[in-house]
Amino acid sequence: MEQAVIDQLIEIIGKENVKTGVADKLAYSYDATPNFQALPDCIITPRSTEEIAKIVKLCNKEKIPIVPRGSGTNLAAGTCPTQGGVVLLFTYLNNILEIDEKNLTITVQPGVITKDICDAVEGKNLFYPPDPSSMKISTIGGNINENSGGLRGLKYGVTKDYVIGLEAVLANGEIIRTGGKLAKDVAGYDLTKLLVGSEGTLAIITEATLKLLPKPKAKKTMLALYKKMEDAAETVSSIIENRIIPATLEFMDQPTIRAVEAYANVGLPIDVEAILLIEQDGDYQSVEADMLKMKDICLENDAIDVSLANTEEEAEGLRQARRTALSALARLSPTTILEDATVPRSEIAKMVRKINDIAKKHNVHIATFGHAGDGNLHPTCTTDLRNKDEMERVEAAFEDIFSEAINLGGTITGEHGVGEMKSPYLAWKIGEPGVELMRQIKLAFDPHNIMNPGKIFAKETRKRVVI
Amino acid sequence: MEQAVIDQLIEIIGKENVKTGVADKLAYSYDATPNFQALPDCIITPRSTEEIAKIVKLCNKEKIPIVPRGSGTNLAAGTCPTQGGVVLLFTYLNNILEIDEKNLTITVQPGVITKDICDAVEGKNLFYPPDPSSMKISTIGGNINENSGGLRGLKYGVTKDYVIGLEAVLANGEIIRTGGKLAKDVAGYDLTKLLVGSEGTLAIITEATLKLLPKPKAKKTMLALYKKMEDAAETVSSIIENRIIPATLEFMDQPTIRAVEAYANVGLPIDVEAILLIEQDGDYQSVEADMLKMKDICLENDAIDVSLANTEEEAEGLRQARRTALSALARLSPTTILEDATVPRSEIAKMVRKINDIAKKHNVHIATFGHAGDGNLHPTCTTDLRNKDEMERVEAAFEDIFSEAINLGGTITGEHGVGEMKSPYLAWKIGEPGVELMRQIKLAFDPHNIMNPGKIFAKETRKRVVI
Repeated sequence: MEQAVIDQLIEIIGKENVKTGVADKLAYSYDATPNFQALPDCIITPRSTEEIAKIVKLCNKEKIPIVPRGSGTNLAAGTCPTQGGVVLLFTYLNNILEIDEKNLTITVQPGVITKDICDAVEGKNLFYPPDPSSMKISTIGGNINENSGGLRGLKYGVTKDYVIGLEAVLANGEIIRTGGKLAKDVAGYDLTKLLVGSEGTLAIITEATLKLLPKPKAKKTMLALYKKMEDAAETVSSIIENRIIPATLEFMDQPTIRAVEAYANVGLPIDVEAILLIEQDGDYQSVEADMLKMKDICLENDAIDVSLANTEEEAEGLRQARRTALSALARLSPTTILEDATVPRSEIAKMVRKINDIAKKHNVHIATFGHAGDGNLHPTCTTDLRNKDEMERVEAAFEDIFSEAINLGGTITGEHGVGEMKSPYLAWKIGEPGVELMRQIKLAFDPHNIMNPGKIFAKETRKRVVI
Repeated sequence: MEQAVIDQLIEIIGKENVKTGVADKLAYSYDATPNFQALPDCIITPRSTEEIAKIVKLCNKEKIPIVPRGSGTNLAAGTCPTQGGVVLLFTYLNNILEIDEKNLTITVQPGVITKDICDAVEGKNLFYPPDPSSMKISTIGGNINENSGGLRGLKYGVTKDYVIGLEAVLANGEIIRTGGKLAKDVAGYDLTKLLVGSEGTLAIITEATLKLLPKPKAKKTMLALYKKMEDAAETVSSIIENRIIPATLEFMDQPTIRAVEAYANVGLPIDVEAILLIEQDGDYQSVEADMLKMKDICLENDAIDVSLANTEEEAEGLRQARRTALSALARLSPTTILEDATVPRSEIAKMVRKINDIAKKHNVHIATFGHAGDGNLHPTCTTDLRNKDEMERVEAAFEDIFSEAINLGGTITGEHGVGEMKSPYLAWKIGEPGVELMRQIKLAFDPHNIMNPGKIFAKETRKRVVI
């Protein structure tokens, strides 16, 4: 990147908002994805949509990559500046602009921390459901770019289901506004839903209007323990077949349980093969009735213990145990690789079994936890980047896992995004014609490929041998 | 269209499935939109996705327009073959392929009647919420192409919220599969949500997997009568502000009430200014509690009468009264033009008042009903196509209505689509850069512009003078 361009950036947003020091570049050279690192040319902190529009226009003219970045919790190298260029931070665009209690919406800038949104609206007896595990540090802008899921996804859906309006800067520097405080809008193609989950490759999102729900009046939490993983999976199917959609239906296998217990000391039994964390919310009576029925279903499916949290503190402890799964596993070894292969929920038992077989076959350590109700599993490999031989086996194992997910009618990524890491596998899910179509869409938005280039679309794709 | 092309069509799908007679062409020369008519070159009824792929490939080569058509209930000329070409019917692709009770999904072909889907799943204690007023005749393929709404939209969302997987034929004849029986999938751009509501302009949808919910255990219906329209609108806001999301919250103004009563004779009082139809579903106790609270809110806002349906027959009568609004109004004059300007729900009262002012200003008759909870109004003009002077005033009135909706933060179409009729106004909602972006997306999918050409994008756009 030439100094002349840096000078122009400085002219737009001021010297104090353009960082080019080595320490700064290093700090933004990676995200939460192991094995990906690349230095950006500079890091910028604009203060308004208008400034961003000017910056994008400049970058488009000079063909300089722009990588928008929230808190960098991405797990697929989606925010790693692998082609250099500008890392765009939303540090100053971090305001909640409005909570509209008549229309049940909140309008925010991209830099707001997700949990702050949840807390702000709960104070008004409202509810923003998407709750990715990273919600205490991740920003809503990142959540929108990745279409983040979370623990409440089964009943309440994902980020996309709540984004109803956007302001975005296009590659040519034009500012568009999509959707609005509207329950219904079919004026042309749905640019809102297309931008959500586009991983920063189509436009820079600068403002979002989110739909809110009334806060459920009651919530209950319980834990079910299983000697056999299959019984836990069978419980998941059985609950849904009984026409109950719980707010949370989370799964942890034995290696995960042990790691969590060693880390958080919450009193989880380490001799069981699987734990389900089950929550329901809604009106008092409905919650009570659903919890009783689900308890019965757990016991019918050979749960060895089912215990209801008696207090909100106890419940929060159980939720935190699940939320710390990644941190707990990360302590076991120098490198942790967390994946998010997803299958139809009826295939959970098969998939967990396959993951265990694959780990054995390649002689790697994989613990599995995740959103059982969504079929969204997080097989997590504890390994060591410096062990080249093992890393090759890890990669082969994940390749098998993606392939197996596809075989079972699933997908290569449920909530983390494709990023750069999973781009070689995209065609496995959507086929070559699908990838080609996506390339054309990318081209329609971003003819010079400046918007987070190298993500979603791979230079080389993996051939898949159907098993 | 040359005979040689017709011959090739016959070769692909057989002589009996290619109609070129004048009577056939006339029958498919219009949809439910007044003032739009154009003859297609032929009407075809393929029997499989593979046949459709071959047809599309042929049309793409020969640059022949394809207009996919369900039951032709479109209200924005979306299924009128305004550029001739092939009208593609799904007469034989009308099967429910699978109801999956483990994953709570139904997989259907485009030609299935929407109400048949609702009925089929209710038999299994499941629930497909989207219920456009046309559901007894409209097809799911049409609903998907238009992203249809309905009476349950406030609580349950629209068609898009339930489509989780698609099979579609692209303009180049390739067949793609998007999504699946998956609660979460972020493998690349969301082609599923982009295709839903694309009005047949991007691809031919040949199969869909829809998400189902457990059927609510109870449902209650009530009617609230108002001397003043403002009180009804105030009630709508007040219900939502009280953190209740009813399943249905429908509005009819006095002209609509009179037309419905004259037509259906259900005992509606014709001296009130507005009626709200309010429904709640869910668990018994929650429904009971919500209905009581909503009744109080109605009375607090000066409803002169609030009556709960005592039986399901009574409730169905009230729902039918609302559903027949369009048919009832259509009896009043030779031509009925139904629009769907939509505003944030907080702006309902203002919008209804503005509509009445606009009708007076242009000396035209407009009755208004619609989905009050969604802010989705149906101002309906009873007029006569043959009265050229009046038709000009009608057009001017609707132009004012669209403009007013935009001023209030709304949109030109909430659930009908842009079609050809509203295409001149698209830029009012999304701006010129937004329209240009949509044109590029269209080009990415359909470089030869064979997919329902002339829809969404106008040759001439209306300039809007901001009031």
